[in-house]
Amino acid sequence: MHDERIVWKGSVMTSPLPPALVTCGDMDKPNILTIAWTGTLCTQPPKTYISIRPERYSYGIIEKSREFVINLPTSKLVRAVDFCGVKSGRDVNKFEAMGLDICNASAVKAPVLCDSPLSLECRVTDIVKLGSHDMFLADIIAVSVDPKYIDKNGRLTLEKAGLIAYSHGDYFALGEKLGDFGFSVRKKKTQTKKSKKKANNKHKA
Amino acid sequence: MHDERIVWKGSVMTSPLPPALVTCGDMDKPNILTIAWTGTLCTQPPKTYISIRPERYSYGIIEKSREFVINLPTSKLVRAVDFCGVKSGRDVNKFEAMGLDICNASAVKAPVLCDSPLSLECRVTDIVKLGSHDMFLADIIAVSVDPKYIDKNGRLTLEKAGLIAYSHGDYFALGEKLGDFGFSVRKKKTQTKKSKKKANNKHKA
Repeated sequence: MHDERIVWKGSVMTSPLPPALVTCGDMDKPNILTIAWTGTLCTQPPKTYISIRPERYSYGIIEKSREFVINLPTSKLVRAVDFCGVKSGRDVNKFEAMGLDICNASAVKAPVLCDSPLSLECRVTDIVKLGSHDMFLADIIAVSVDPKYIDKNGRLTLEKAGLIAYSHGDYFALGEKLGDFGFSVRKKKTQTKKSKKKANNKHKA
Repeated sequence: MHDERIVWKGSVMTSPLPPALVTCGDMDKPNILTIAWTGTLCTQPPKTYISIRPERYSYGIIEKSREFVINLPTSKLVRAVDFCGVKSGRDVNKFEAMGLDICNASAVKAPVLCDSPLSLECRVTDIVKLGSHDMFLADIIAVSVDPKYIDKNGRLTLEKAGLIAYSHGDYFALGEKLGDFGFSVRKKKTQTKKSKKKANNKHKA
């Protein structure tokens, strides 16, 4: 009964994904584009990637500078997220069109998007040709955070940033929190800080 | 003023990501583990990856079989998503523990998780050593869909599946829909099916 699934040919349907706002170039001549083909590759050393079509304007910029910044997208930025995925920096200054401000990054020449709660400063290590897209493997060399998402105890309150997800052509706000890592094996009534820490240490991504 | 961001050393904070339920092995000796280090690498040909720590039980299984299935996670499966990320198949039968049923895949020996709305059947092409994790690059060779998410017109209604996202240690349901691809450049009152199609064709991931 369960086996009555419908089978389609292979296609890229992993979801939800972050529709990341990727900045490149430098403070004088920046560009920005939206990339959902991104994610984490390795925890230590911290490695990520973005996959880009060679015909995109930013491809040549990043190929040359070998640097980019992944800015996490939020509900407030959703119109810019969409616009920066549809429009090309060849034709329009997307920062001006969407009223986006840029800040200095700490470790790369590429700018950081000031309105993003958290940005990953990345340096390209390899470019891998795959077909429609080339994968830019990169080391994450610094993280830039909006201080308003750091609480009194120094904890990052990223859950307050209003992050958004991309799924099958739609943008969604994150909704109800369903649990935190390790909740399925944690004892409910006898939970202590120690046991929580222990569960977190078991994290095997 | 905007430049007053806090800078941390590099770390893997891309989010939200899908906490995918990855199945491997075969119908007689299956295993399952949760992997958020996944995403789309290339649209055509369709390529994805999973990054796995070599010490994980599934690493050897996938290294040998060179096949796996990415099953999209849902709210109903959130306890299993967490459990399968914390526990090892060396110590426990995670399918039995979480009451998970498996179905035959169409193109690989690895099983499909029957309760997942959509599963990507993958064949490994390369294993890249990166550090704590190795990246398994793979071709997506088939997609298996629960027919209840296909409407009368043959459209995939993935928005009804209750997909979940993983962000900074927490699991979230997808919340409010904020827009669909191309909404920022679409004319509001004169929108036709044709213009919508045109906007979708401009999708440059």
